[in-house]
Amino acid sequence: MKIAILPGDGIGTEIVAEAVKVLNVLDLSFETETALVGGAAYEAHGHPLPESTLNLAKAADAVLFGAVGDWKYDKLERALRPEQAILGLRKNLGLFANFRPAICYEQLTHASSLKPELVAGLDILIIRELTGDIYFGQPRGRRTAVDGLFPGAEEAFDTMRYSRPEVERIAHVAFQAARRRNKRVTSVDKANVLETFQFWKDIMIEVGQQYPDVALDHMYVDNAAMQLVKAPKKFDVVVTGNMFGDILSDEAAMLTGSIGMLPSASLNDRNQGLYEPSHGSAPDIAGQGVANPLATILSVAMMLRYSLNQTEAADRIESAVSAVLSAGLRTGDIWSEGTKRVGTREMGDAVVAAL
Amino acid sequence: MKIAILPGDGIGTEIVAEAVKVLNVLDLSFETETALVGGAAYEAHGHPLPESTLNLAKAADAVLFGAVGDWKYDKLERALRPEQAILGLRKNLGLFANFRPAICYEQLTHASSLKPELVAGLDILIIRELTGDIYFGQPRGRRTAVDGLFPGAEEAFDTMRYSRPEVERIAHVAFQAARRRNKRVTSVDKANVLETFQFWKDIMIEVGQQYPDVALDHMYVDNAAMQLVKAPKKFDVVVTGNMFGDILSDEAAMLTGSIGMLPSASLNDRNQGLYEPSHGSAPDIAGQGVANPLATILSVAMMLRYSLNQTEAADRIESAVSAVLSAGLRTGDIWSEGTKRVGTREMGDAVVAAL
Ligand SMILES: CC(C)[C@H](C(=O)O)[C@@H](O)C(=O)O
Ligand SMILES: CC(C)[C@H](C(=O)O)[C@@H](O)C(=O)O
Repeated sequence: MKIAILPGDGIGTEIVAEAVKVLNVLDLSFETETALVGGAAYEAHGHPLPESTLNLAKAADAVLFGAVGDWKYDKLERALRPEQAILGLRKNLGLFANFRPAICYEQLTHASSLKPELVAGLDILIIRELTGDIYFGQPRGRRTAVDGLFPGAEEAFDTMRYSRPEVERIAHVAFQAARRRNKRVTSVDKANVLETFQFWKDIMIEVGQQYPDVALDHMYVDNAAMQLVKAPKKFDVVVTGNMFGDILSDEAAMLTGSIGMLPSASLNDRNQGLYEPSHGSAPDIAGQGVANPLATILSVAMMLRYSLNQTEAADRIESAVSAVLSAGLRTGDIWSEGTKRVGTREMGDAVVAAL
Repeated sequence: MKIAILPGDGIGTEIVAEAVKVLNVLDLSFETETALVGGAAYEAHGHPLPESTLNLAKAADAVLFGAVGDWKYDKLERALRPEQAILGLRKNLGLFANFRPAICYEQLTHASSLKPELVAGLDILIIRELTGDIYFGQPRGRRTAVDGLFPGAEEAFDTMRYSRPEVERIAHVAFQAARRRNKRVTSVDKANVLETFQFWKDIMIEVGQQYPDVALDHMYVDNAAMQLVKAPKKFDVVVTGNMFGDILSDEAAMLTGSIGMLPSASLNDRNQGLYEPSHGSAPDIAGQGVANPLATILSVAMMLRYSLNQTEAADRIESAVSAVLSAGLRTGDIWSEGTKRVGTREMGDAVVAAL
């Protein structure tokens, strides 16, 4: 087993260091190799995803990714900005299935913006298609409009598109995930406006027929954005496209109040995966040793479960994290009166100790 | 002054009836004419937006719109479904500027999903571009893919596009609105992924230079969906495209906990406008006399202010609504212990009495 470690920028290096410590005490046999990505890679090699980094990721069974990005790269041309590394990895590794759990930890219910009764026990799974849609659709660019409201004017455009096999495979992922949970899938679309999402909805219904034991319903994306606020616990598995998934998975994560706790996985059809925290690179607190490493540590658990077939080790990590929370340890982002504030390294050490 | 009244479907007829009562006691001189729209128009004329209805709307200074839609039309082909009426009105009247206030009424703070301290005093304005973007962009449809991940497969596609004049005019609307408020505009984009929204962002910055007294910042749409949950009061005016605006305006409305209170306005460049509640047709409670008419009544206030130049009358309506809330009257959707539950008609009558 080979794991590529890509810490990236900002707090990325600090939180990945703790996750690697956890990985190393598990007594499993694997090889790791670390490489630069994002702004750090741009500084060293002039590109956010150098070929050496990409090749390392391709050759690995799993990638542990920290975070990328910093304000200081805002002025760079788009192709060189840190986020392009993540888009490049998704595309080149074919990581079409993004798993974004939104879980509200019992010990952290108070941290949510929502009233406790609305989020206590929340456990939903957003499955976002990650290599299609308007993210990668061609053609795109700038041109002179030949029709539309202002023919002759300068315009910019992008193409939203989904092909049948792309929708089918993410549908299967969602239905299979629902089978391991509460057997409900909500497909989020905008079929009342978009051709792409009428097509998406039609295929969800078709594929759903192969899963008679899973209940399927459909929701427009605007309504989904509302229902997540109103009654998030009504969802089980939510499946949606790349663009809507970007928005809804972040909304759902923030609803839990503890985005510093939420891992994510992005898988291809060979179960090769990229694992990263749901939060970003937080340049404002980078280097201070105060970032929460738990989302990254829990991403290691997801990695062990989905790509490396080490369910037992995954369970152990999750229990250790829970134990550390129950013991009252908190980084600043989840701290509240009566709990003990710790730094990144202490939190990592505590998880190692609990293991 | 001519006002077209389009009650529509579901609770639309009930809530518009109350709004018309309010309009009639104001002692202003105007003409009204009522027409069918949505499912009701489809039943009677075979089309959700019959030519007679469209012509009436075009000839009016303002349109008071209830709501459209019902599950029973779900199986109709898209072009005949009720929602097409609203897209048709926007397009044919050129209603490019959608104003969606998200206000948390002092008397209703408890109704929010969010903790009271996060929403008390909330007053933000989302300005959504309403005639461009992927909603109307051509080409769109189904075809056989010639490139992409699965060449040869069946695919569906849509085109996102914005031209310079479309972005410029909505930018001016936003900056001017901010001047009448707290002088801050947040432009929401996805410039890190989409050509269309890099263009949007560039133009926002350009136009912003004409408004040195207004502070402009930029936020990615996924982050905006999070910040609305985390700290909604940090926003003043939010301006964004049609698709992102659809999602964020509904999310923000739901955050207030009282979507039954929120009006909206959609204006063209001649200040002709369509006014409607932010909520939908609620077929589940239609005909029961329990719907909240206040969002529609407040839409009349917006109509008087934006299209009919009757600021004083608009203020009077808003004060009357506030008085009725302070007197403890509540429809079911905003009811809480210790307040008096009333029906649609009683609520309308109470506003009339307060006037
Ligand atoms: C950085 C950006 C391109 C990316 C996305 O939009 O997919 C991020 O928001 C995410 O969700 O991983
Ligand atoms: C009914 C639908 C087409 C419409 C939209 O998406 O614009 C609605 O959601 C709205 O926001 O007014």
